[in-house]
Amino acid sequence: MAKREPKGVDVWVVGSVGIDDIQTRESDRKNLLGGSLPYATAAASFFAPTGAVGVVGDDFPASFVRRWEAFGVDLSGLQRKPGATFRWACRYDDDMIERTTLKTELGVFADFEPCLPEPYRRAPFVLLGNIQPDLQMHVLKQARGAKFVALDTMNLWIDIAKPSLLRVLKCVDLLTLNDGEARMLSGKFNLCECAAALQKMGPKHVIIKKGEHGALLFSGKKISIVPAYPVRTLKDPTGAGDSYAGAFMGYLAKCGRVTEETLREALIRASVVASFGVEGFGLEQLARLDARRIEARVRELKRMMAV
Amino acid sequence: MAKREPKGVDVWVVGSVGIDDIQTRESDRKNLLGGSLPYATAAASFFAPTGAVGVVGDDFPASFVRRWEAFGVDLSGLQRKPGATFRWACRYDDDMIERTTLKTELGVFADFEPCLPEPYRRAPFVLLGNIQPDLQMHVLKQARGAKFVALDTMNLWIDIAKPSLLRVLKCVDLLTLNDGEARMLSGKFNLCECAAALQKMGPKHVIIKKGEHGALLFSGKKISIVPAYPVRTLKDPTGAGDSYAGAFMGYLAKCGRVTEETLREALIRASVVASFGVEGFGLEQLARLDARRIEARVRELKRMMAV
Repeated sequence: MAKREPKGVDVWVVGSVGIDDIQTRESDRKNLLGGSLPYATAAASFFAPTGAVGVVGDDFPASFVRRWEAFGVDLSGLQRKPGATFRWACRYDDDMIERTTLKTELGVFADFEPCLPEPYRRAPFVLLGNIQPDLQMHVLKQARGAKFVALDTMNLWIDIAKPSLLRVLKCVDLLTLNDGEARMLSGKFNLCECAAALQKMGPKHVIIKKGEHGALLFSGKKISIVPAYPVRTLKDPTGAGDSYAGAFMGYLAKCGRVTEETLREALIRASVVASFGVEGFGLEQLARLDARRIEARVRELKRMMAV
Repeated sequence: MAKREPKGVDVWVVGSVGIDDIQTRESDRKNLLGGSLPYATAAASFFAPTGAVGVVGDDFPASFVRRWEAFGVDLSGLQRKPGATFRWACRYDDDMIERTTLKTELGVFADFEPCLPEPYRRAPFVLLGNIQPDLQMHVLKQARGAKFVALDTMNLWIDIAKPSLLRVLKCVDLLTLNDGEARMLSGKFNLCECAAALQKMGPKHVIIKKGEHGALLFSGKKISIVPAYPVRTLKDPTGAGDSYAGAFMGYLAKCGRVTEETLREALIRASVVASFGVEGFGLEQLARLDARRIEARVRELKRMMAV
């Protein structure tokens, strides 16, 4: 927030910040810290100094700020504006995959104009979280030092802002989206064909996420497959894609370079951090996480996929 | 067939033999050699001497016998009975996953009583393909030399013959089924919980197949994850599960022992052979396959999943 001294970061994320209500068959939880930004930055923070670019209203609880900062995330890019914080509510079906959105109140997020703190402008790794594509472009133009830019998106923007999305896609290195979105944006069905079509739109690298079935990374002509860690207790899948993208970029920022090897290792961290995240509501499981537990599960997942 | 001299085999399979009609959006193919037995034995035959135990009617074309024997499969366990061969027809939805069964005519399959040729009784590896569980038990009792028995099943038997299925499950080492069937038989939803419940029914090893998303092997407490090979041209998914199980058991039979390593390598062969199979209609792609092409794709898949 404005009063804080901006710090240098290796990776920053722009995204939404919300106050979420989440219903599952087993629980009904209200007023959770949510939105793509807290999930993605918390996940990235396990690996590298991470900054958050977003907006909250004057109703945003101080306890949320403390909880968020406890991850070590720099919040100097978080604006506080008069008005209400973005609010979102959903109910999950029993399969914990399909969900119904019960409420979307944009609040101050409706007029969000992301502005990069000066030190962020030199950061090499950038994650354009899931927000309106023109805003992604607006903030990317401020990122003079960006060396590797990833973009996350969703069906809404493919539907209502496709020309804007196509413009910003020309400027990014990596696109991450789920299988349904990949099919929607590319107009193809087979995922290999989807990826080839998406790569032609700009990004050299495309990650197609398949939830519990893992993810495929298409890098040029090469394919890497990383399964999801088999979660035994799925409590709340909200934010899993954001944690995935955040951990992925945080790990790359830690390595400081993008190679076949760092990309693969980043995919494994992404799978592992996201798997912890969905074992609790909101950010509660990520808040209990540390590097030792992450690397233990990385070894476990590698044993499961050892060839 | 009866006139042939029975050969010694390292693995045999019992299953259905049919004449299939298959419709997809792009094709409408009639009178294909089908059923679980041709797919499974053809797939196993790339790795080890394989025998087939099944029944056909007197309408079963000589050309089908020649095509099947061209794989090197021993057909001395294939009975020919007066009457019609099992016939099956289906139409695939555009997603090539969901399908509608258009015709099921059991013919001679309705009175099938599997009988093992004497040399098969000494074979160490056995695949009880997807047939009525009492028949699986009947033929298993003849398999004196069986060292490692795998069982495949389907939703129909879980639905109408569960007590019989539970009896035969007590006698097998490995169960293979898809995720929906695993949930149906175990009454659990989470696949780790499904596997634990299924292991309690008898088999030490459980393979849960997830189609294009790969498969999970639960061996005691250990989990192995093997992704599906990303197929670019999916023409006909019929028999993919049978090819998968056949290649898996064929590879184990080739190795002659069941260890953590041979199980994992067998899973990879299963994934690869099944991936070739679905690139053509019926058995046409398997008929073009050889060890060299299989091992080339094994290396390709291993590179994709390298950690």
